[in-house]
Amino acid sequence: MKIQLAQQNYTVGDFEGNTKKIIGAIQKAKENGADLVVFTELSVCGYPSADLLNFNEFIDNSLKAVHEIAAHADGIAVIIGAPERNVSPRGKDLFNSAYFLFDKKIQTTIQKTCLPNYDIFDEYRYFEPAYEWKTILFKGKKIALTVCEDIWNLGDNPLYRICPMDQLMKEHPDIMINISASPFDYTHDEDRKATVKQNVLKYKLPMVYVNATGAQTQTIFDGLSLVFDKDANLCKQLAQFDEDEACIIVDDNGKVDSPIIESNNELPNQQLDPEKLDPALNIDQVRKAIIHGIRDYFSKLGLQKAIVGNSGGIDSAVTLALACEALGKENVLSVLMPSQYSSSHSISDGEQLCRNLGSPYYILPIENIYHSFLNTLQPVFKNTKPDVAEENIQARTRGNILMAIANKLGCVLLNTSNKSELSVGYGTLYGDMAGGLSVMGDCYKLQVYELARHINKEKEIIPKNIIHKQPSAELRPGQYDSQSLPPYDQLDPVLYQYIEKSREPDEILKMGYNPKVVDLVIRLVNKAEFKRHQFCPILRISPKAFGPGRRIPVVARYFK
Amino acid sequence: MKIQLAQQNYTVGDFEGNTKKIIGAIQKAKENGADLVVFTELSVCGYPSADLLNFNEFIDNSLKAVHEIAAHADGIAVIIGAPERNVSPRGKDLFNSAYFLFDKKIQTTIQKTCLPNYDIFDEYRYFEPAYEWKTILFKGKKIALTVCEDIWNLGDNPLYRICPMDQLMKEHPDIMINISASPFDYTHDEDRKATVKQNVLKYKLPMVYVNATGAQTQTIFDGLSLVFDKDANLCKQLAQFDEDEACIIVDDNGKVDSPIIESNNELPNQQLDPEKLDPALNIDQVRKAIIHGIRDYFSKLGLQKAIVGNSGGIDSAVTLALACEALGKENVLSVLMPSQYSSSHSISDGEQLCRNLGSPYYILPIENIYHSFLNTLQPVFKNTKPDVAEENIQARTRGNILMAIANKLGCVLLNTSNKSELSVGYGTLYGDMAGGLSVMGDCYKLQVYELARHINKEKEIIPKNIIHKQPSAELRPGQYDSQSLPPYDQLDPVLYQYIEKSREPDEILKMGYNPKVVDLVIRLVNKAEFKRHQFCPILRISPKAFGPGRRIPVVARYFK
Repeated sequence: MKIQLAQQNYTVGDFEGNTKKIIGAIQKAKENGADLVVFTELSVCGYPSADLLNFNEFIDNSLKAVHEIAAHADGIAVIIGAPERNVSPRGKDLFNSAYFLFDKKIQTTIQKTCLPNYDIFDEYRYFEPAYEWKTILFKGKKIALTVCEDIWNLGDNPLYRICPMDQLMKEHPDIMINISASPFDYTHDEDRKATVKQNVLKYKLPMVYVNATGAQTQTIFDGLSLVFDKDANLCKQLAQFDEDEACIIVDDNGKVDSPIIESNNELPNQQLDPEKLDPALNIDQVRKAIIHGIRDYFSKLGLQKAIVGNSGGIDSAVTLALACEALGKENVLSVLMPSQYSSSHSISDGEQLCRNLGSPYYILPIENIYHSFLNTLQPVFKNTKPDVAEENIQARTRGNILMAIANKLGCVLLNTSNKSELSVGYGTLYGDMAGGLSVMGDCYKLQVYELARHINKEKEIIPKNIIHKQPSAELRPGQYDSQSLPPYDQLDPVLYQYIEKSREPDEILKMGYNPKVVDLVIRLVNKAEFKRHQFCPILRISPKAFGPGRRIPVVARYFK
Repeated sequence: MKIQLAQQNYTVGDFEGNTKKIIGAIQKAKENGADLVVFTELSVCGYPSADLLNFNEFIDNSLKAVHEIAAHADGIAVIIGAPERNVSPRGKDLFNSAYFLFDKKIQTTIQKTCLPNYDIFDEYRYFEPAYEWKTILFKGKKIALTVCEDIWNLGDNPLYRICPMDQLMKEHPDIMINISASPFDYTHDEDRKATVKQNVLKYKLPMVYVNATGAQTQTIFDGLSLVFDKDANLCKQLAQFDEDEACIIVDDNGKVDSPIIESNNELPNQQLDPEKLDPALNIDQVRKAIIHGIRDYFSKLGLQKAIVGNSGGIDSAVTLALACEALGKENVLSVLMPSQYSSSHSISDGEQLCRNLGSPYYILPIENIYHSFLNTLQPVFKNTKPDVAEENIQARTRGNILMAIANKLGCVLLNTSNKSELSVGYGTLYGDMAGGLSVMGDCYKLQVYELARHINKEKEIIPKNIIHKQPSAELRPGQYDSQSLPPYDQLDPVLYQYIEKSREPDEILKMGYNPKVVDLVIRLVNKAEFKRHQFCPILRISPKAFGPGRRIPVVARYFK
């Protein structure tokens, strides 16, 4: 059987665009003489569509698109993903289904069984799981078709009571096909490959695995579609982060007509689930993920231009460099906003960075505005000592200037906060926490440094001084991060244990971390919940990002 | 059997406080000679605990508290709610359980079957549903014990495949007990009473229904615990929004020793699910809900003082009046921040309001700061025409002033946005959209007027002129809401159809609404998703509030 893999990037709710893209790939598959072309999970409507799935019209439009696509399934079979109405009087209104199209008709649908409802996933909110399983007979072969998470229960995943492949094996299928929308995080690509391979090893069937690509707000899908032969040799792997396609033949013996990339002897890679914040994480991959995240945010919203606050510090430098890479240097305006507390190098470093990048910038000192605030606030502030209030005025003045320019010139403000400061609340709400998209809100400070070094690998783009100077918010004379926070090489590992690994203070202490640091850090993280609650979407690169994947009540008394 | 109902207000994660409260009520129940005292769903840890349930220590602490409470179950039986570890290798790690304590021991646990996973509910994220059902034998009677949603499937709720009471009826129970954490919305109290009554009518058993009270961030629980006798007469109803208790006897014939409040002849009230934005909604109840929401937000975070921007308009007036009612007038500071575009009545009305309330205020004109911004921005803004950028600078200057005072004096900024403007994005991010808690973000403008009239019922608190003047943001000369938006009596009903009723544009048009209004409104609502994504928690009073109950992707192309 000749099978075309169509790894594409869809836009949620863009039925016209998605349908056009799918029909285009069907055309190409026909030209390749494919028997079957396989798309990804919920390809027709985009994944995740979230509560748009609650609108009847959304489902109607999706079904209309399925029928339009079916009209092109002549002489070729097509597998696409789309919501399906549950016609029984029992269960949620929808299934998350794979549609098998042939002879210009919907021949059958396969419903997803294992519905993820953890981290960023909410599938039980919308979908009813499958309660029956069947293979699809096509060209004399039985296809075991599953949807994404369905292959993540090999019979021993405690989250699920049913293993769909075990059910399907009763019909003795010839090949496994899985359509996915499986998002990127820096542990997940190896994990995913291992899972697909484990299925092949268990069921002794060839497998075609097609995964979506492209970013959907904060969630980044990275493609990396796979083909394994019956003997668990990896024969094909599509691009990471980009659209891609391939046409392969799976023969009657379960062999694939492509050279073996990784033989079955190579053990599946260990699940990359590091016990400690891993300096070995693939920083090149993280950089690509972020670039794609920025690019898709802008292109899918139909926007071109970004603005970034340029403090002369490492976070804004990396954000600016990544934004230029994603959008083009001419589309990224940065603004230097020195105050009386800014060091001279803040301005010179920030300017040098823009010169290196070739990106436009303004220098707009905030001193006058700041004094104007202090004068106006005099009736309230007289007889009080300077404190965080005065510091925040400066940060919010900068936020206001950036938003004003964004409004005036039609840009989106990119936020420059990193995960370490978001964790402990070391940032000003409506000030440096402002922005439409957080570029590095899922990167700890140590990882920001890694990104900076990676960006400078070939030539110095980020001035060395920015990388080497002591981090400072420069909101009062002689201020440094280290006065408020533990050094980042002590802070980040504790944050990692608490956030990524969901370890409690007691457990973290037992691992040997400094008790004073642990106590301070956990307290700060919990106190900052209200700030993160109002933060913009964060490009997700880790297995546990702030945002919809981590839901902590604002009002609670715990880990005080 | 003598049963004590304990309707209490818990704090999420406050095991010490919750346990103390529960033990106190057990003591009282003992003094009343009760055989059994009944608490509410997840009473030990607080509901909803959200992702705190992912911490092992949280569950350990909860179990410790259960054992501490069990030690007081001597001579009396106690029913409390707490998470329970799932010891089987299948399914999620936890059950949402009712613990039956007696003889100082956990005698048995009952697991929740119907797990809500819609609107604000995410129970499948944490819990495994029950797969077996049993009654509890106590003092010669069989108790059919269920948890909250379990009684909302009478066999015909398509969301669920199992009706737990149908299962329990196989053992011929004598009485039904349900422990709930069922939140308030303006349709839900009557709905809830009807559902409990329908259970009594179907199963012909007396029923004790105990519901939580108190606000948890945005979600407000309103109590209203109920006792029905076997003949479906309502015999007891506890307070709405407050803690309350009652001790009743259910005799061997299923009769209750309390006077009948509503006889079984009275048909259950229709589910109040109005087709149109209902001017008949119980505004007194909504006011009480908001007051409780504000009060619990502050008290559970250990805060006293609020600050409110006082524009002289209706939204800030109602917010201010409700805040004074909730926190005490001396604890609510308001700030008038006139600009050159402010009308004279804005200041006089705002001042009059504070005099009427007896609450402190400052007048801090923003003109100087505004000019300072314009001067600083001159290099960017020169040769451009004034537009929304200049308007937003003013709104964000006010936001900055309010936050600065909040930081300096240790107050929380209460947000004054209403649901109509949040819907259509008629507000400035980091400006008038700033704040820690949104008081009226779930009230449409027409409902804000209703609240104003209700507040003024006994005497004029909100100056009449504030109620009668034309709404204006006063960010440019001669600006009125009506220049940007349809009149509120046209806007609000369309918003209601789209948001509360999830109706699509086509359906709304068929209902006879103005096509131009419908088109504009839907487009504006969808364009504002990115703003609402960064908004603070909104006190929820309707069946569909913005926030965790409505999850729309920021990046999507739909209803353009």
